[in-house]
Amino acid sequence: MRLVIDAMGGDHAPRAHVAAAEQAIAAFPSLQVTLIGDETAIRAHLRDETRITIVHTDEQIEDTDKPTTAVRRKKQASMVLAVQEVKEGRADACISSGNTGALMTAGLLYVGRLKGIDRPALSPMLPTQDGKGFLLLDVGANMDAKPEHLLQYAIIGDAYMKRVRDVAKPRIGLLNVGSEAGKGTELTKVAFSLLENSDLHFVGNVEARDLLDGVCDVVVCDGFSGNLVLKSIEGTAKMIFAILKQQLTSTWSAKLAAGVLKPHFKEIKAKLDYAEYGGAGLFGLKAPVIKAHGSSDAQALFHAIRQAQLMVEQQVVQVIRENLPE
Amino acid sequence: MRLVIDAMGGDHAPRAHVAAAEQAIAAFPSLQVTLIGDETAIRAHLRDETRITIVHTDEQIEDTDKPTTAVRRKKQASMVLAVQEVKEGRADACISSGNTGALMTAGLLYVGRLKGIDRPALSPMLPTQDGKGFLLLDVGANMDAKPEHLLQYAIIGDAYMKRVRDVAKPRIGLLNVGSEAGKGTELTKVAFSLLENSDLHFVGNVEARDLLDGVCDVVVCDGFSGNLVLKSIEGTAKMIFAILKQQLTSTWSAKLAAGVLKPHFKEIKAKLDYAEYGGAGLFGLKAPVIKAHGSSDAQALFHAIRQAQLMVEQQVVQVIRENLPE
Repeated sequence: MRLVIDAMGGDHAPRAHVAAAEQAIAAFPSLQVTLIGDETAIRAHLRDETRITIVHTDEQIEDTDKPTTAVRRKKQASMVLAVQEVKEGRADACISSGNTGALMTAGLLYVGRLKGIDRPALSPMLPTQDGKGFLLLDVGANMDAKPEHLLQYAIIGDAYMKRVRDVAKPRIGLLNVGSEAGKGTELTKVAFSLLENSDLHFVGNVEARDLLDGVCDVVVCDGFSGNLVLKSIEGTAKMIFAILKQQLTSTWSAKLAAGVLKPHFKEIKAKLDYAEYGGAGLFGLKAPVIKAHGSSDAQALFHAIRQAQLMVEQQVVQVIRENLPE
Repeated sequence: MRLVIDAMGGDHAPRAHVAAAEQAIAAFPSLQVTLIGDETAIRAHLRDETRITIVHTDEQIEDTDKPTTAVRRKKQASMVLAVQEVKEGRADACISSGNTGALMTAGLLYVGRLKGIDRPALSPMLPTQDGKGFLLLDVGANMDAKPEHLLQYAIIGDAYMKRVRDVAKPRIGLLNVGSEAGKGTELTKVAFSLLENSDLHFVGNVEARDLLDGVCDVVVCDGFSGNLVLKSIEGTAKMIFAILKQQLTSTWSAKLAAGVLKPHFKEIKAKLDYAEYGGAGLFGLKAPVIKAHGSSDAQALFHAIRQAQLMVEQQVVQVIRENLPE
């Protein structure tokens, strides 16, 4: 399989992207990688070109660019060229750690939606206490979702968790404000009955409070709600670690004791770090398009490559297509 | 002023309610309290009846009761009688730590909405790193909110923060998925322009990630979204403390070091504890109705009493009424 990587987006481009590609080439014998971006900058980090191809471009989409305009105007941007490699059949999947909105626009425009999917979903795996994680769809691709979109997300999530995360019978939950049926908005009430009448293993409504306990494997919601949940989790973790740091450096005895506990704090941070699950998938397209976090280091990008590779090998897109209603 | 307390709801009733009432009577010379519930159970804890009246009832709404049915059928329930004390003018404000849905139903039915308020909002204060906190409206009273409801919440929040939390010029934020105007759903787009054209100090869209940093004093959103944010924050904090506990008791050296840090961990928990801000207001009614958390101890209930007293003294309801558009 061939994977194309936009080597120019994110905080550590292209160094981290080159390092991740080299690591992945060593780990996966059938993998071939195309790196798109500034050839000189890429070559500055590249030590071994085995199964790695470089496609040069000067242009790049910035995080501050307006997505739709940028994709339309910057036709030679590394991200646009990367997505086009997939469209033209020269690559099986694509990864970018650049502008999220631009990647959604480019993915939709060039790779295109699967028949039976009205709107793609942006779908990260989030951590749970047991380390298994859950897939959250959607976190912002589709703001004003309709009930049938949530059913489509459930079908996508079911296929992904079965094929990529090896969950035999994924538990599908509907994000809601209470566990009883009939809770929530007009959207969730109708979505509940669609999910209940599907062939999926629907476990009912799930509350935001219980997600990190691992109450289910796939959580579906509109993009506005998913974004709020994702960012609330991030913001709360950030705040607690900030207070923790402040408190544990406030006295000498605290500093000493905290020093002893350092490996444990590292372990806690690792448990909350969801980069090991890969990037956020832009699911519902005709090929895997993965959005890695802008802050991704080589290790996080390596996980995203492994994720994309698994999606291709396990034919996740085909499985989704087969499971969509006619 | 006279405050009525439903002495029968929550995990620590009526002991915590009696203790909080006695503490408040000692602290606030102008306060009179009516405790409603099982007289024998209340008297078992009551040491001093100065300015405290007991109204006996056998009936009680349980947490598992269906709100609308319970309020209609259990006409002698402590919560229903408490709310009726306000309706009949025998009390200026009401506190309950019982069934949230039932309190919303009873408040709406008996105390009634202010003219100009379409839907009341359930509004807790949440903690921020600087200790000042922010008011979040709504967290679940009104699921499918309309833009004008969000404007009404902003007017309510503005009055509350000015009068009760002593913020001279409250910064009003609209909960959204990005900071730029034009982000979000149909609801937030219209609400943005209503807020922008109001006399309030509207600071624009605020993201869930930044709320605990204290980016604004009042955050408005539909009840579904607010509920997700509230419960995501709670769930994340719960998970981190669970992992922390697990890690810090995993080895002897960790246990020892953690012992040294105990006062610091207490401090961190205190920073995140929002009970000191009082309960969640059911705002937009003709009198203050406060929902204290079901797990409230005497201290948390004392804070709720202080909050209700301030709301009455500072005439928050009147200020809201005056600020609503004709």
